Amino acid sequence: MAFDHRKYTAFRPVAKPDRRWPDQVIEKAPTWCAVDLRDGNQALVKPMSVAQKQRMFDLLVKLGFKEIEIGFPAASQPDFDFCRKLIEENRIPDDVKIQVLTQARPELIKRTYEALQGAQSAIVHVYNSTSTVQREQVFGLDRAGIREIAVNGAQLVKELAEQYPDTEWTFQYSPESFTGTELDFAVEVIDAVSDVWRPDEGQPVIINLPATVEMATPNVFADQIEWVCDNIRRREHISISVHTHNDRGCGVAAAELAVMAGADRVEGTLMGNGERTGNMDLVTMAMNLYSQGIDPTLDLSGMAEITEVVEACTEISTHPRHPYAGELVFTAFSGSHQDAIRKCLARRKDGDTWNVAYLPIDPSDLGRRYEEVVRINSQSGKGGVAYVLERDYNISLPRWLQIEFSKVVQGAAETNGGEVDSMTVHSLFEQRYLKVHEDWALRAYDLRRDEDGVHAEFTYGRESAPVRLEGQGLGAVEAVSDALEKRFGIEVAVDAYDEFALGEGTRANALACIRLTADERHCSAAALAEDTTSATLQALLSAVAQVVSGDEVKAGSEESAITA
Amino acid sequence: MAFDHRKYTAFRPVAKPDRRWPDQVIEKAPTWCAVDLRDGNQALVKPMSVAQKQRMFDLLVKLGFKEIEIGFPAASQPDFDFCRKLIEENRIPDDVKIQVLTQARPELIKRTYEALQGAQSAIVHVYNSTSTVQREQVFGLDRAGIREIAVNGAQLVKELAEQYPDTEWTFQYSPESFTGTELDFAVEVIDAVSDVWRPDEGQPVIINLPATVEMATPNVFADQIEWVCDNIRRREHISISVHTHNDRGCGVAAAELAVMAGADRVEGTLMGNGERTGNMDLVTMAMNLYSQGIDPTLDLSGMAEITEVVEACTEISTHPRHPYAGELVFTAFSGSHQDAIRKCLARRKDGDTWNVAYLPIDPSDLGRRYEEVVRINSQSGKGGVAYVLERDYNISLPRWLQIEFSKVVQGAAETNGGEVDSMTVHSLFEQRYLKVHEDWALRAYDLRRDEDGVHAEFTYGRESAPVRLEGQGLGAVEAVSDALEKRFGIEVAVDAYDEFALGEGTRANALACIRLTADERHCSAAALAEDTTSATLQALLSAVAQVVSGDEVKAGSEESAITA
Repeated sequence: MAFDHRKYTAFRPVAKPDRRWPDQVIEKAPTWCAVDLRDGNQALVKPMSVAQKQRMFDLLVKLGFKEIEIGFPAASQPDFDFCRKLIEENRIPDDVKIQVLTQARPELIKRTYEALQGAQSAIVHVYNSTSTVQREQVFGLDRAGIREIAVNGAQLVKELAEQYPDTEWTFQYSPESFTGTELDFAVEVIDAVSDVWRPDEGQPVIINLPATVEMATPNVFADQIEWVCDNIRRREHISISVHTHNDRGCGVAAAELAVMAGADRVEGTLMGNGERTGNMDLVTMAMNLYSQGIDPTLDLSGMAEITEVVEACTEISTHPRHPYAGELVFTAFSGSHQDAIRKCLARRKDGDTWNVAYLPIDPSDLGRRYEEVVRINSQSGKGGVAYVLERDYNISLPRWLQIEFSKVVQGAAETNGGEVDSMTVHSLFEQRYLKVHEDWALRAYDLRRDEDGVHAEFTYGRESAPVRLEGQGLGAVEAVSDALEKRFGIEVAVDAYDEFALGEGTRANALACIRLTADERHCSAAALAEDTTSATLQALLSAVAQVVSGDEVKAGSEESAITA
Repeated sequence: MAFDHRKYTAFRPVAKPDRRWPDQVIEKAPTWCAVDLRDGNQALVKPMSVAQKQRMFDLLVKLGFKEIEIGFPAASQPDFDFCRKLIEENRIPDDVKIQVLTQARPELIKRTYEALQGAQSAIVHVYNSTSTVQREQVFGLDRAGIREIAVNGAQLVKELAEQYPDTEWTFQYSPESFTGTELDFAVEVIDAVSDVWRPDEGQPVIINLPATVEMATPNVFADQIEWVCDNIRRREHISISVHTHNDRGCGVAAAELAVMAGADRVEGTLMGNGERTGNMDLVTMAMNLYSQGIDPTLDLSGMAEITEVVEACTEISTHPRHPYAGELVFTAFSGSHQDAIRKCLARRKDGDTWNVAYLPIDPSDLGRRYEEVVRINSQSGKGGVAYVLERDYNISLPRWLQIEFSKVVQGAAETNGGEVDSMTVHSLFEQRYLKVHEDWALRAYDLRRDEDGVHAEFTYGRESAPVRLEGQGLGAVEAVSDALEKRFGIEVAVDAYDEFALGEGTRANALACIRLTADERHCSAAALAEDTTSATLQALLSAVAQVVSGDEVKAGSEESAITA
């Protein structure tokens, strides 16, 4: 049987009756460390060239990262060369620390210090594997043997640092495969390393706890972090770092809960590139903080540049649903979402706290345009259609016409099967409502009011065959209707009538929309004109034209509405 | 200032001093409901055609889903038509319930029942928005007004169901935008709906709590779910469902913690397609359970088919790092990872519980091949190179030669900048170690042992100019070395010598590898032959050939090792 869950056993979480992290809320950004150039790079089909590495490094500096892991120089000649290049060409800003990884093996540690020679400051990140499976199956060593590797490594790191006193050294130790390590043993190894490094005597020390493989729900990782923080020696002198992977799709959650559980520092990569399913995505976690009113200490406003550089360096495309960065993440296709967004944006005033349905953050903060927010397809309704006409053509529709016209658009979308762009929406509106047949074009009017009401005289039709009519009514619409009723022998009842002054800068600055019933047939039309009266009369003429020429449409009363 | 976190406020979580969920562990799969055809479909640039919908529906049935939301028939004619097609063409298996969504509006609810007419069983899923922002900014209604919409909807759902007694009805209510709703109000509305539906009197009822927008860390969502479960009436008669989105990249985590907090049912989509950043990914959550030894109640072994159908229906490619499904998620490029995987796999016996470093599950369970697990580039080391030669060419290398040869491969990878495929690894090995110059090809040997040791006579070189030598030593290698020392006036010391019998089915079934020092120069060679002695002698000849022709390479002692 190929698909048999009985081949696996459940992760056994530690009991944590004194758990405190679920009552915490993150209130400030952790220290970030970007590991794109190491963990990210080693996971690529085609590792980065020196030019790509430089581009990535420059972006990370620009975004505001102060700690950047640049490679594993002792294991890779290109990593060694890149490290030398950064140092020798003075490419590292004064407030940025480079970090390099090495296994806890003497020859690799020595080579690591050679790579770092001349750096103003640097983090030497030494690790060995501590998990049960690695001890038993890979190294064939017991706990003492594994601890000895860590301690010997820590000692050599310390000794060699003393030989290069001009560099400001930070030491970092990772019990690799921490999530698969018994917690008491993890603490034993960490304490043994910290006994050597003595963070309490002034040596800056980072203890990094990696979810090398994500093995349980993220709350279990938080429990593990809180347990370690509670039980290690010299906690207050140590920066606790986490480095989560995404095997269960929860790398960001695990890092966030770990920060609630006490972690001071988070390692990750832009867009989550990294081994297998990737690392914790720095963009997502930082933007999650930002969306809660917390300074992320990174400037992610140029999201297009970020995705462009990441794509160029990793040769992996950004998923269209990638949080905060994907093409579709600010887009609403569904009718009710569009309607809600439109209403919230319309009410919003400059300086207001952001509070818009379906949009956790303002797309413009990341350089995205509102044009992308509402896109129209067969799942869209009146809200989206109205929004697009307003936004791009300054045309406001009355609610009854939004409902009616959205059916026209939905029909078109169902027919073509795909998206209907803004220009097409406008052209559908023009075709269906605004187009004036030359036989029905208003040419002139004369409206006079006296004690009996309004008397209307008007001319329409082709220049070669104008039609001149007269009518009487309580208002202009009634008077013109009266004239048309007499002319065509029909009964006209106006069901809805709205007119809007349009914004400046358009030649036609009035829009009138009218729906009427004539001889039990419904029809509607709209008109743009330089003045309101012309627009109204033209709309009326166009609507009656439909009845007379048998071209009316059924006006529906239902609204389209799709939601999530 | 475009990028200013002060525009946002923090989500205010509810106090939950009696929180219990962090002590829970998920021990069985929730009821799944796939919403690919509704939430997934409405979020596509190009919504699915009927043929695509049918293909997706058939896949979901095949995978084992028993509840499938197929659309919003009252708002979309294609959704209506598809619903009718499924029912009229008898395409719904007896044990599968279709589910359809509708807003809590009379005309839409009526149309929904028309769409469902004749179904054997169905879930009518009615919703209205309850969040503060929707109440205040979109609907302009107070709490009572919003509750009334829900209650009126629930009443109509119940009344209409009674008109269609031949269908087995389940009612589902969602307080849409639940995550933005005050919890006491959510409970008030849920109770009002359940007062109408009376799940305690036998009516099956689902209350679905959507993270329509993900607004806080996933533990906060779990607190919300636990709070609702603790406070609603008739809890034991209601199926509590969750429907999470991924705005903060934590949709899977939120659903998992929600199940720990009491949720019975989870809605999501395959590969997480859906509005904006997408829905909870059913594949990831189900596989997370599977990896813990829990029956996911879905058969995901045909992962290639799943991604193929999803890609065809959504026109969105699978990200190469998508958990369990992406191209790269089982691949290790880094040296130390490859080494650990190789050792764990080598130890593994059939029937063993899965316990392999860096691989949370066995790739073969999802139809993936081990060929993908170890891929070689400049970040790889001896483990990967050895693994590839063993796996694809049945060639086992001794550790010293793994180290030496991996440097050759790494050099080639650094030069070409990309991946080195298995065939290239083999060809590099052949070029560097196995190739026999015809001047040095062994032709015949005669080894005789007596009380003085071994006497060797052997012939090598071109047929036209064979060389015949004799030597004496304690063993064959020493005897042949003796002959070569005398012939070329050099001192030969064998530093390492290993030979292996190869598996069956290859003509050459012995491999010998030798490293020697001659006149302070190191060289190494390997040979394949039909018998061990021939292989050994040829390897020795090839190694000496390098010294004599000045073609030796420096044998390094360091190992390449990159990790995560």
